[in-house]
Amino acid sequence: MKFSPKIFNSHPKQDGDFFLGIKRILGFKPKNIEVYKKAFLHRSMNKRDQEGNPMNYERLEFLGDAMLGTIISRHLYSSVPEGDEGYLTKMRSKIVSRKHLNELGKDLGLLNYVESRIPKSHFGENIHGNVFEALVGAIYLDRGYTFCEKFIQSRVIEPYVDIEQLEGKVISYKSLVIEWCQKQKKSFHYDVYEDTGNDVLKHFAVKLTIGEKILAKARATSKKKAEEKASKRAYFALQHKIESH
Amino acid sequence: MKFSPKIFNSHPKQDGDFFLGIKRILGFKPKNIEVYKKAFLHRSMNKRDQEGNPMNYERLEFLGDAMLGTIISRHLYSSVPEGDEGYLTKMRSKIVSRKHLNELGKDLGLLNYVESRIPKSHFGENIHGNVFEALVGAIYLDRGYTFCEKFIQSRVIEPYVDIEQLEGKVISYKSLVIEWCQKQKKSFHYDVYEDTGNDVLKHFAVKLTIGEKILAKARATSKKKAEEKASKRAYFALQHKIESH
Repeated sequence: MKFSPKIFNSHPKQDGDFFLGIKRILGFKPKNIEVYKKAFLHRSMNKRDQEGNPMNYERLEFLGDAMLGTIISRHLYSSVPEGDEGYLTKMRSKIVSRKHLNELGKDLGLLNYVESRIPKSHFGENIHGNVFEALVGAIYLDRGYTFCEKFIQSRVIEPYVDIEQLEGKVISYKSLVIEWCQKQKKSFHYDVYEDTGNDVLKHFAVKLTIGEKILAKARATSKKKAEEKASKRAYFALQHKIESH
Repeated sequence: MKFSPKIFNSHPKQDGDFFLGIKRILGFKPKNIEVYKKAFLHRSMNKRDQEGNPMNYERLEFLGDAMLGTIISRHLYSSVPEGDEGYLTKMRSKIVSRKHLNELGKDLGLLNYVESRIPKSHFGENIHGNVFEALVGAIYLDRGYTFCEKFIQSRVIEPYVDIEQLEGKVISYKSLVIEWCQKQKKSFHYDVYEDTGNDVLKHFAVKLTIGEKILAKARATSKKKAEEKASKRAYFALQHKIESH
């Protein structure tokens, strides 16, 4: 029997939105919703647990920061077998940079869930990255290492980690593609439209037409990212042609 | 049928000692012995893998360092619920300090397994800690997160991590116990003897007698550690008496 009244007990009505919101962000069901609530609790709320210990997202942020570093290390270890220790360390710090984490937290709209006495407009940029790290810590406590790894794979590594671009070998695939089109005297056109569908975040889709042919499509959380993603795909599709020039 | 010729194929005779040595250090069977060999391979050997990438322990050290930090973070998160982010960060860096890791690597006798063209006497202290981190990375690749966590629990946390002592609240339990005995005009005696048994490392056992009674026993990898461990046990056994003074 699939139906169980327990489901309703553990997520009373007022928690329903939070539960659904978190589920969409995670891509899987939270088990213990309380730990996620803590991940969004700002110290200004002055909450304390039953033992009287201060309760806010900062301890989870400590845990999530470590988890994130480890999972990114593991990814780099296998995806760049030729990189030495120094290279791996440098790449990891680029991926988990404050700027990058803030972008991630912002794309996931985490600020919407933050509970605080301070108006949200008063927070600096770092709140996005800090809450993102706390969320990673919460996932680890709730579902363990493997779920945490999957979350980081789908929400960080796949959409954001491009080794070539992080190495600075490629600044922008879009500019490479445009340059090629101009040299080849081929027309090109980026057709961008909103396409959020059932996603947690606003999404944009783009079609890149070169000459008469739709060469690549892509979706991402900003117009710029979608164009860059489509350009990257087009670049690899055209690579042998580009490189022979 | 338990007997399988595969076992012999995967660990030919010349590897037998290494396999058994690693198994004793780990406390469980390695699956892929090759990854452990890499954890002991110094760069001076100039080895390369099939793709021509340099092969030595440094990449595994990068991975192990991250794993260790995460597992210690997780331990501190649950064992010190009252500690804030700053406290947890400070305690973690004490636990994973270079000095501490070198001590760990030395206690496990890891240098015995290092393959190097440089004479071992020429290495500085850090080789012990570096190889320890590489070993943690190898365990993670070979057996995954849970085994890695178990190894760190039994080889690092249980024998070495004493929060009170790391906090500097207690410098030495031995001195607390001695002070108490002197005030109480009680005789005390530490009886230390070698007791390695089937262990990987040389071990010492100690009996602490206060007055006529054997108050605590302990075993550790050095005389000093065994005395401290027994003193700690005695201290907690005597605590109500000590605190009422």
